[in-house]
Amino acid sequence: MVTKLTTMSAVSEKMTADSVALHRLDMAASSESEHVCIFGTGDLGRSLGLCLLQSGYSVVYGSRRPHSCGSLPVGAQVMTHAAAARSASLIFICVHREHYAFLETMDHQLDGKVLVDLSNNLKKGMYPEANAAYLQRLVPKAHVVKGLNTLSAWALQNGLLAGKQVYLCGDNVEAKRAVAEMATKLGVTVVDKGSLSVARELEDFPLRLFPEWRLPLCIAAGLSAFFYFYLLIRDVIYAYVENDKDISYRIMVSLANKVFPIVSLVMLSLCYLPGVIAAFLQLYRGTKYSRFPNWLDRWMLSRKQMGLVALGFAFLHAIYTFVIPIRYAVRHKLISQVVDEVRHNNKTTPFYFDNTEAWGTDSFYVLGILGFFLYVLLGLTSLPSVGGSLSWREFSFIQSKLGHLTLFICTAHGYIYGWNKFLRSSTYKWYTPPGYMLCLIVPSVVLVLKLLILIPCVDHTLTRIRQGWERKKPTDEIRVFSL
Amino acid sequence: MVTKLTTMSAVSEKMTADSVALHRLDMAASSESEHVCIFGTGDLGRSLGLCLLQSGYSVVYGSRRPHSCGSLPVGAQVMTHAAAARSASLIFICVHREHYAFLETMDHQLDGKVLVDLSNNLKKGMYPEANAAYLQRLVPKAHVVKGLNTLSAWALQNGLLAGKQVYLCGDNVEAKRAVAEMATKLGVTVVDKGSLSVARELEDFPLRLFPEWRLPLCIAAGLSAFFYFYLLIRDVIYAYVENDKDISYRIMVSLANKVFPIVSLVMLSLCYLPGVIAAFLQLYRGTKYSRFPNWLDRWMLSRKQMGLVALGFAFLHAIYTFVIPIRYAVRHKLISQVVDEVRHNNKTTPFYFDNTEAWGTDSFYVLGILGFFLYVLLGLTSLPSVGGSLSWREFSFIQSKLGHLTLFICTAHGYIYGWNKFLRSSTYKWYTPPGYMLCLIVPSVVLVLKLLILIPCVDHTLTRIRQGWERKKPTDEIRVFSL
Amino acid sequence: MVTKLTTMSAVSEKMTADSVALHRLDMAASSESEHVCIFGTGDLGRSLGLCLLQSGYSVVYGSRRPHSCGSLPVGAQVMTHAAAARSASLIFICVHREHYAFLETMDHQLDGKVLVDLSNNLKKGMYPEANAAYLQRLVPKAHVVKGLNTLSAWALQNGLLAGKQVYLCGDNVEAKRAVAEMATKLGVTVVDKGSLSVARELEDFPLRLFPEWRLPLCIAAGLSAFFYFYLLIRDVIYAYVENDKDISYRIMVSLANKVFPIVSLVMLSLCYLPGVIAAFLQLYRGTKYSRFPNWLDRWMLSRKQMGLVALGFAFLHAIYTFVIPIRYAVRHKLISQVVDEVRHNNKTTPFYFDNTEAWGTDSFYVLGILGFFLYVLLGLTSLPSVGGSLSWREFSFIQSKLGHLTLFICTAHGYIYGWNKFLRSSTYKWYTPPGYMLCLIVPSVVLVLKLLILIPCVDHTLTRIRQGWERKKPTDEIRVFSL
Repeated sequence: MVTKLTTMSAVSEKMTADSVALHRLDMAASSESEHVCIFGTGDLGRSLGLCLLQSGYSVVYGSRRPHSCGSLPVGAQVMTHAAAARSASLIFICVHREHYAFLETMDHQLDGKVLVDLSNNLKKGMYPEANAAYLQRLVPKAHVVKGLNTLSAWALQNGLLAGKQVYLCGDNVEAKRAVAEMATKLGVTVVDKGSLSVARELEDFPLRLFPEWRLPLCIAAGLSAFFYFYLLIRDVIYAYVENDKDISYRIMVSLANKVFPIVSLVMLSLCYLPGVIAAFLQLYRGTKYSRFPNWLDRWMLSRKQMGLVALGFAFLHAIYTFVIPIRYAVRHKLISQVVDEVRHNNKTTPFYFDNTEAWGTDSFYVLGILGFFLYVLLGLTSLPSVGGSLSWREFSFIQSKLGHLTLFICTAHGYIYGWNKFLRSSTYKWYTPPGYMLCLIVPSVVLVLKLLILIPCVDHTLTRIRQGWERKKPTDEIRVFSL
Repeated sequence: MVTKLTTMSAVSEKMTADSVALHRLDMAASSESEHVCIFGTGDLGRSLGLCLLQSGYSVVYGSRRPHSCGSLPVGAQVMTHAAAARSASLIFICVHREHYAFLETMDHQLDGKVLVDLSNNLKKGMYPEANAAYLQRLVPKAHVVKGLNTLSAWALQNGLLAGKQVYLCGDNVEAKRAVAEMATKLGVTVVDKGSLSVARELEDFPLRLFPEWRLPLCIAAGLSAFFYFYLLIRDVIYAYVENDKDISYRIMVSLANKVFPIVSLVMLSLCYLPGVIAAFLQLYRGTKYSRFPNWLDRWMLSRKQMGLVALGFAFLHAIYTFVIPIRYAVRHKLISQVVDEVRHNNKTTPFYFDNTEAWGTDSFYVLGILGFFLYVLLGLTSLPSVGGSLSWREFSFIQSKLGHLTLFICTAHGYIYGWNKFLRSSTYKWYTPPGYMLCLIVPSVVLVLKLLILIPCVDHTLTRIRQGWERKKPTDEIRVFSL
Repeated sequence: MVTKLTTMSAVSEKMTADSVALHRLDMAASSESEHVCIFGTGDLGRSLGLCLLQSGYSVVYGSRRPHSCGSLPVGAQVMTHAAAARSASLIFICVHREHYAFLETMDHQLDGKVLVDLSNNLKKGMYPEANAAYLQRLVPKAHVVKGLNTLSAWALQNGLLAGKQVYLCGDNVEAKRAVAEMATKLGVTVVDKGSLSVARELEDFPLRLFPEWRLPLCIAAGLSAFFYFYLLIRDVIYAYVENDKDISYRIMVSLANKVFPIVSLVMLSLCYLPGVIAAFLQLYRGTKYSRFPNWLDRWMLSRKQMGLVALGFAFLHAIYTFVIPIRYAVRHKLISQVVDEVRHNNKTTPFYFDNTEAWGTDSFYVLGILGFFLYVLLGLTSLPSVGGSLSWREFSFIQSKLGHLTLFICTAHGYIYGWNKFLRSSTYKWYTPPGYMLCLIVPSVVLVLKLLILIPCVDHTLTRIRQGWERKKPTDEIRVFSL
């Protein structure tokens, strides 16, 4: 607004700009394109208008009742739909689909205008036709662009747009370009999804629930189910069948407290496995410019979520462990042990203290605690506001060096748990290995592969490849060129 | 700045714009309104200037000693107060109230200017008159606007303005409007509080300490005090009076560890009660457009804080529980139990293992742990940076679905604690019910009401109402119209 | 872009601006300075371009292959290097140093242009010459400015610039000024480091790892090592030498769980010590305007990190404590105790219950738990997103009032641990005081000094000094003047 005033006073120096009165309407005629129009004065319309004002646009609201539509952002104007439409070439439609009908009667005023359809539905498949397609049918002469519909009024109002991706689609390239430039000014990153026929897909985007968490949660659920039943058979059912003992009460805590660390460790190693695979792929191909296969890309994109799920399981494992001594079964076992000691072993020699056992269990706990501590540190740095305050080198130090250290410590925690049990045949009930042995396979493989990469000559080659060097002469020089 | 250069070179094409030299002063005369003036070069003045520069304004500082006032933001100019005042129509006063006197001598230069008073005092009632009223009295011909005083230099400097609310008041509508537009460009949301007579109220705003936490903390303190004394009487005093036993040491840990979960559960249910009440109110009224009563509004606005206070109590409950087995009294009781077992019950039968008891306590702990885990998840998503990265649907899924699940699990945790004790008459010491029974009332009511709402036909009606449908024909159509 | 359109249409009213087509190239000739040029279309170039577009600049990319350089931000143009260089007076060089050679051939086009070198190296001392100096040597007629190289592509893309500091250096003052203004518009705070000769230093900045954490971590490591060996000698070696008992297993858990709280408490008090010293210094000097000595400044700047390291140690202490009852050595001791009790003390009197002991240990735990709870609260408010949502008064309330309360509670926790042991001579093994006594010195001193400051007359003087009052008449009045 202020910029405009300046411009105008530079052109016609007679205009006195020394008062704070704002001559918006006078100027509207001569500087149409700076105006943006919003139809609808609900939450979304108001928040969007606020953002547009902050980005330097003049905002004109179109409303059925321009004189009674609540508090709008300061600096915006309200007009009738027709007047508002005339004042701008780009109109955001912030009205429910059910009320689109009135737009049909404005066909004339909307001729050649860009209409941005931001609407969403409450569930998939509510209407046979996408909202944007319906809008285009109502106003055939306008250029309908579907998009920005993933932005909520809340995000707009709280300035949470930076770094967010929004999607656009539409049939008119120039119209899409104009909307994309405006969205870029608002701070979001724009992705063009193609013609208006994909509008339906875009309208389903805001209905998705944690799409990037789906894969990690599925893997975690699958692993949990598998190990739970595996341990159920080995522990509870085995004891019932072979020893005729009912230890079913263990299902609640003991079994869960075996499954959680197993799943946590496997998930953590799955977090670092794709990085190792990618390194070997780059070494094999001798270049960093070939695209990774799709499954690897997808895997690498869900590493953060995998790590956080692993942290969740580690957290549960920690609490389950702290609760052990107050459990009835544990207290009962302790008392029985003492009573037995007193009755049957009634010698006067002091109760035997096994020094190796003391060292073993203590090392086991210490590794577990340190592993959990590093786990929590990793989790904290993945908080958006903490991660954002780190430099790139610091972030990669934490996530790579500290991450692999965490994996190493947690794996060692697992190995000490096993200790020398793997030598006894009683460990292999019904010829199956215990759960902790199974869960150590993947982390061990990841650590060995990582160790191979750290061998100086391999590391050196890899570093050169990641700096852009290629074993074969690159065919497309541009790729090695820019930062 | 760059924009202006362009404009100017477009008008007088002889100006060569190929050097990076900046002709700011030459242009100041012709484009006054783009300039903003700031009196005072302290922390606040510097930070505000930085923000204004980033929003595209030209900033002119007025200083007593323009040549020795430290490092100012790049791109800003410094002048004497008089010269600076001439260059802009809007002046921010970033000077302590004690130093306002010099403004009286500038009455002429400040004639018709908008003066924004951002000052705050160290405590309430330091001066008989509001700072802004005093300023207006000193410079009667200027238009004083009080406001933006809740913004700290720190928030300004670190770009933490987005989504913040600021308050304005002043007697001149145009002046307020100009300030409001500028504030909107800075990214804050402006609320007009009326005439300059409320300046005093605005000046007290920054002195408030956690205003939105007051209600939840009061409720928590009240509940804690009540249950603490209730349990003190039932447990410690009862034991002293009836059994003549001194168990006063329980005050420190055992009693607190009963009070914490009780208060936590009640607070959590108070978090979800207003939502349920609101739903029933909407069902009864048949519309979503009638305003809720004030008490309900206020309650709903403090739900987040209530939930976090509940989480704090749950956290304390968890740690108090982990510490149980290392307490002297608990270890003593365990040893006594064993000694008794050995001495008095000197049979050779093994110590009896109660399978039901094992299942009961384990389920109790598992529900507690899962409840706490979900509690922590809810707490994490209420962190501004985490919540901001969720879509609206994801946020409401977490806070509503996951929240009610947490309430359900924690309530079940409470019920299992009670188990079958409610049947024994010894539970009702002095004819009073135990604390956990009292605390289960509110959560149970909330869960039952929520269950009623989930019945398909009720749910369907409610969804329609929330989409804008009204049982009676709406009188004000505009309300159902926009997103 | 839109602004420019307006301007143009105001000047030549014949231009019809009613289409959304963008006549960028037509205007480029007349409004050169609004354009910014970026050489290189890699990650950094793309992200920087996006930010510049969002701040209202027109971005022109210079590329070797303008027609095949991937997806660039919407609204940016791509040209050959030569054409791009002509269109703007400021050029960001987002190309690896190894590829600078081509710039030598463009000497003519780059004459008088400002070149911003954003490059970083992979490690220190990779090249004998700073990248920026090398660039200046290649293109002697251009004005090279080194800077902004601490900004990562990731931070640029996710809008994480607000409040970040960037450094600039260069030989041409006007060139630096132009870059600084542009950087200010992007939202960062600019610090001028001087001439191009310091470019090397700037290029090493992004290679530093957690510079502000170095001091606190060194102190923590030093304290841990000292106390660890001190306790090792006093506990393990003493027992071995004097009693001939091997309790080396205690190294893992028991010893660590003594060192952690000691280091945590000392670090926490070191967090509050500089504030107290500063207050006494201000009282002594009678003014707040004299600069603190450098060591105090540095200390005060690392308080946040000290506090977080202290929290880390407290967290480890808490988990080590929770794990105590499930340790082999502890369970063994408990069983031995019972067995002894039964065998040697075979009276029928009940096992003696020491009420004082019960109160003592319970108070000890309660203080520890409350201290940890406040610790965690302090840690949470130091999260950038949480701290940012507090007002200045709230933040200082938490960090000062709550912080000192935490220190008080944790110190009391330490004193209760000592209880009456300091009277027994057996406590002073080999005439050395136990660790907890040593660690209580600093916190006690801090608390006593803080208490002195809280005495009304001292507090009053200090408040006046902090409001700007000086005991001697100030010589430089400007300092007391502005907010």
